[in-house]
Amino acid sequence: MDLRNDSLDQLHEDLANANMAPTWKYVSEFVAREPKVSYRPWLWRWDDVIPLLMRAGDLITPERGAERRSMEHVNPDLKPFYSTSHTIATAFQLVRAGETAPAHRHMAGAIRFAARSKGGTVYTKVQGERLMMEENDLLLTPTGTWHEHANETQNDIIWLDALDFPLVNMMQASWFMPGEGQVCPDKPDDYSRRQLGLYRPVGTGGYPESHPVLRYPWVEMKEALLNASKGPGSAFDGTILEYVNPINSGSTLPTMSCRAQLLKAGSKTKAHRATSSTVYFVIGGEGVSIINGSEFHWGRGDVFVAPTWSWHEHHCKGEDAFLFSITDQPVLQMLGMFREEALEENDGHQQVASRFTP
Amino acid sequence: MDLRNDSLDQLHEDLANANMAPTWKYVSEFVAREPKVSYRPWLWRWDDVIPLLMRAGDLITPERGAERRSMEHVNPDLKPFYSTSHTIATAFQLVRAGETAPAHRHMAGAIRFAARSKGGTVYTKVQGERLMMEENDLLLTPTGTWHEHANETQNDIIWLDALDFPLVNMMQASWFMPGEGQVCPDKPDDYSRRQLGLYRPVGTGGYPESHPVLRYPWVEMKEALLNASKGPGSAFDGTILEYVNPINSGSTLPTMSCRAQLLKAGSKTKAHRATSSTVYFVIGGEGVSIINGSEFHWGRGDVFVAPTWSWHEHHCKGEDAFLFSITDQPVLQMLGMFREEALEENDGHQQVASRFTP
Amino acid sequence: MDLRNDSLDQLHEDLANANMAPTWKYVSEFVAREPKVSYRPWLWRWDDVIPLLMRAGDLITPERGAERRSMEHVNPDLKPFYSTSHTIATAFQLVRAGETAPAHRHMAGAIRFAARSKGGTVYTKVQGERLMMEENDLLLTPTGTWHEHANETQNDIIWLDALDFPLVNMMQASWFMPGEGQVCPDKPDDYSRRQLGLYRPVGTGGYPESHPVLRYPWVEMKEALLNASKGPGSAFDGTILEYVNPINSGSTLPTMSCRAQLLKAGSKTKAHRATSSTVYFVIGGEGVSIINGSEFHWGRGDVFVAPTWSWHEHHCKGEDAFLFSITDQPVLQMLGMFREEALEENDGHQQVASRFTP
Amino acid sequence: MDLRNDSLDQLHEDLANANMAPTWKYVSEFVAREPKVSYRPWLWRWDDVIPLLMRAGDLITPERGAERRSMEHVNPDLKPFYSTSHTIATAFQLVRAGETAPAHRHMAGAIRFAARSKGGTVYTKVQGERLMMEENDLLLTPTGTWHEHANETQNDIIWLDALDFPLVNMMQASWFMPGEGQVCPDKPDDYSRRQLGLYRPVGTGGYPESHPVLRYPWVEMKEALLNASKGPGSAFDGTILEYVNPINSGSTLPTMSCRAQLLKAGSKTKAHRATSSTVYFVIGGEGVSIINGSEFHWGRGDVFVAPTWSWHEHHCKGEDAFLFSITDQPVLQMLGMFREEALEENDGHQQVASRFTP
Repeated sequence: MDLRNDSLDQLHEDLANANMAPTWKYVSEFVAREPKVSYRPWLWRWDDVIPLLMRAGDLITPERGAERRSMEHVNPDLKPFYSTSHTIATAFQLVRAGETAPAHRHMAGAIRFAARSKGGTVYTKVQGERLMMEENDLLLTPTGTWHEHANETQNDIIWLDALDFPLVNMMQASWFMPGEGQVCPDKPDDYSRRQLGLYRPVGTGGYPESHPVLRYPWVEMKEALLNASKGPGSAFDGTILEYVNPINSGSTLPTMSCRAQLLKAGSKTKAHRATSSTVYFVIGGEGVSIINGSEFHWGRGDVFVAPTWSWHEHHCKGEDAFLFSITDQPVLQMLGMFREEALEENDGHQQVASRFTP
Repeated sequence: MDLRNDSLDQLHEDLANANMAPTWKYVSEFVAREPKVSYRPWLWRWDDVIPLLMRAGDLITPERGAERRSMEHVNPDLKPFYSTSHTIATAFQLVRAGETAPAHRHMAGAIRFAARSKGGTVYTKVQGERLMMEENDLLLTPTGTWHEHANETQNDIIWLDALDFPLVNMMQASWFMPGEGQVCPDKPDDYSRRQLGLYRPVGTGGYPESHPVLRYPWVEMKEALLNASKGPGSAFDGTILEYVNPINSGSTLPTMSCRAQLLKAGSKTKAHRATSSTVYFVIGGEGVSIINGSEFHWGRGDVFVAPTWSWHEHHCKGEDAFLFSITDQPVLQMLGMFREEALEENDGHQQVASRFTP
Repeated sequence: MDLRNDSLDQLHEDLANANMAPTWKYVSEFVAREPKVSYRPWLWRWDDVIPLLMRAGDLITPERGAERRSMEHVNPDLKPFYSTSHTIATAFQLVRAGETAPAHRHMAGAIRFAARSKGGTVYTKVQGERLMMEENDLLLTPTGTWHEHANETQNDIIWLDALDFPLVNMMQASWFMPGEGQVCPDKPDDYSRRQLGLYRPVGTGGYPESHPVLRYPWVEMKEALLNASKGPGSAFDGTILEYVNPINSGSTLPTMSCRAQLLKAGSKTKAHRATSSTVYFVIGGEGVSIINGSEFHWGRGDVFVAPTWSWHEHHCKGEDAFLFSITDQPVLQMLGMFREEALEENDGHQQVASRFTP
Repeated sequence: MDLRNDSLDQLHEDLANANMAPTWKYVSEFVAREPKVSYRPWLWRWDDVIPLLMRAGDLITPERGAERRSMEHVNPDLKPFYSTSHTIATAFQLVRAGETAPAHRHMAGAIRFAARSKGGTVYTKVQGERLMMEENDLLLTPTGTWHEHANETQNDIIWLDALDFPLVNMMQASWFMPGEGQVCPDKPDDYSRRQLGLYRPVGTGGYPESHPVLRYPWVEMKEALLNASKGPGSAFDGTILEYVNPINSGSTLPTMSCRAQLLKAGSKTKAHRATSSTVYFVIGGEGVSIINGSEFHWGRGDVFVAPTWSWHEHHCKGEDAFLFSITDQPVLQMLGMFREEALEENDGHQQVASRFTP
């Protein structure tokens, strides 16, 4: 070509034809000054959702071949991804008295939180180890582990699932394998906790598993929270504790950190934001969280999400409130992308502009 | 409602209205049996691309305010993301004799590979340390580090940039800050390598930086490859070495591992695939890589991408060939999502079905 | 000098005068083919020792200014060092009803094992945290931590101390500081376990202490042992579990690993030896350990030591037996000096040549 | 016995008979308030020592079966241990032109520092890898590694050995194995540095060795020191750099950290002390170190030791001086026993009370 007549327009056209893009033209589209977040905060009320789950309890029977009677919390901005935040998907699952589900495994890592359980022999079995589910217990099913469940009691159980499949799908790394027959040898109940947590076999070359603790009983976490609440706590979260994987002093799963927090009666926390997203489940109590200037009123059993980089603060109304939450913060930290900041103005409190209604 | 007339259709409708999704209906859309990969392998020929870059050299002058004269390799399936694989974006950048670019910093981590340099005082300055760029040297600009560059010679330089901004954008965590004046105190040239690599100040509380080595000279890597090539090498990659961050024995950046490999004259490797993607730059030599059954013929200066879960194998034609590559494997490993497999059939070689043309 | 008349003898003399030593002459004195161990196995019977301790209970009163009413198990070969093995010193300590001891701290790290306790408010306070002592509980007082104790009950308590002061003294690094008044702010009881073990405060920059768990209740360890005993166990030790520091997945202290083991009724283990030494305390049951060919018969409350590189195996007589033990194995491992081997001959059992009597 | 007549004297006698020791009586003997150090600082002059070594060169011929023509620096207070400090033993070794020594290995870890070498094919071979010895190069022979050497040049070589055998012997863990024939397969020269340092084979499960770098050339260290000397340096040591093991960002060996330092012409450092001991070798220059109030004048080739907890400071006389040193600091740190302090009084300088003469 005759370069004397060359022009930027011509170059841009030729670049497009060559599957190249001029950085000088498009850089602001792929390097933003601040996080551009694609989804909004949202809240799902227990009273709206559970009736739907109970209807599924009648309509979806084991005989019809449904192994998984669960319902995803789908952020209205994330419909194509079936997810709650951009990296985390939560769901409620119902297992009726006497039901069982066969084993399977998959790339996605998951946790289960026993939202409503009367105890007894209701369990998730992970890699051959039965993990009993008392109310508000936390269970892990890490990536690639065989898991199945059974409810051998006379009562229904409802639990909260949280999976990292949105992250798996971003990575384009999904993988699923159904089990057949016995997938791995049985271990004693609570094997991981008793044998691999603080009391480890000698002479076996260290921990045989990457997740030495698969169950964290609520009675322990609650006692820890009550003890910790005698101290000062966090300005942003009240008394908040992270469930720890003792093998590496890290989070429950590499992709999801689980936490529980106690907001004292009448307390108000200050607002902050971070390059991480968090999904909350209300264990008990009532309150309101202000997320990006909008009030989210919550009570027992509700689920809500604070997106990446959203300002959020919590106010507890009435009695002490307990929240359980799942955050992708460890992912951001591993990638070197975690940043956080406190709200400076107005003594750390947002101006309330609206009240959320679903 | 009258539950005697309830139906799955009605439930599904009610769930949608409640921003819930029935897992039993949609699970296969978010939990796939195998990786569903959204983009194809591709190749950009040096001879096609560099004339475009040289035209930009004339059209984009520093006076016009363009700080960054570079061009992205955009996979035709990833146009909205301006990226080469789903996690990695590469580009060629041209810096003309006498040009400089002021400092900035951003969330995205980056590496630079000096594709064409005649040496001299051409450098990228990272956190106050000048890193000289001899041909095929590797330089790091980790997340959040100030970087700027200058070409004080009489010759143009062209380098390959690789950034993790697609991953930053997936995480919705972008952040950018332009610099003004002197952004940080000057350090001696090659400070990180000489002071923080194998020879570290005592009594300073350990390494002051998370990346103790910011420059890896090609003369060292080439010598290492030649030494290593006396050994057996990898069935899939010939002689392949990873650039190591000595502070944690890990990859160059947490998000991107850099590698160089030597394919001996006439050698053929076997096919494998993994839940990671790789972008290649041809340092020298000629050959053909078969990716998902299609032939990609390459020569010096070409760039090509092997997507996640793509079968790939390399054949060297003529003299010894040298490839430089960037892979997101460390991300998959940190997340617990790395899997790989060898091709079993046909002695590890794919059936060739087509030949790539851009 | 006239070197024509030089001789080795003359050279050796001249070297000695120059404070040099000829390696060729003395190398076998400082580089031995096998560990040269300077001390023998030994056993202290509860029934011999405790009457002495009770006499001290009468003779050593708090009024006489004795803060520490304890008695060291001194290996007859290690008298100058007041120690049980070359790296570990154990002692029995008696704290009478109503007694207290003020705080102090020292370089030596220590553990306490509550050999006889009726529970109640009897505690060691470490860094402001009260650790209650139920029978057979394990408590840590790591290097440099303030510790004091009190027995507010109506009963005496006897515990086993194990300290690493022999190692501190080898390193010539001893250091001691008595406390005055309140040495550090009070924390809630069992703070470390509840707040720093599996449930950790968020946003505090991680664990505030290097030892997040300071107390390991016997009820937990015993349950873990009983569970683990359903599995195969170790050929050399029966069912044996190590107390784990969850912050680094390491041993209780960097210098001493604590363990508990269950020897099933009638069981016989095989002999092995290692470059580590171990002191045992018999929690319950009766048996005999064969150490370097000599029988050591033991029952509840006895203490015995297996020196470095000593062959040892255990036979349980009567009911299930429980042993607590302390070993310097982590030191040897950190230094890169840990080696172990199994006895090959005679199906792994030593020839018994003698029976130990004190 | 009749306890009404009991007495402390009687109890002490009975305790001794029972191989027990009363803590209240002896505690100050095993828990000192400050480090009790058993040995003094000392200095060996090159000019005194090397003539002895050369005489050994004539008297100890390979034919007489001496594999190791070396001479230990024996602290006059540590004669039974043949060591320089309580944990470190150094020696000078002479290998004459054309000599070789067969392979052996032992528990003790060692380093070699090429005090006088004219280069050429003079090497230590470690695990099959030849490490060439240019003057002042540092070489590692970690615990348990096969090593042998050869001097294929026309010149003698003298090197400094430093071994951790005093520590091995404290731990009673010595072990030695002579080699016969070829002890392990040959590797390329400088294999560890080139293949395992900053450039690591992919797909081999990480580093195959615990010490990925076995040789540190003086040309690199010297350049690093000169660069670092443009910065402020340490108040106690001038410009001082530690040789780093990149696999774990740790010291050269777990038992010994190696360092080199540059004392600028005329400079004076301040005094400090620590619970670690250090042996120095003077690479070049002249100066005086004040150790515990005594002057130690040194010049090229001298060796001197600063014991644990000794105050020490350095004054450089004349031109820039370079020191090489070996310290047991990493051992103290691993054990949790490292403490250090600066001299407060007299602006950080000791009162000089004497001048050392051997």
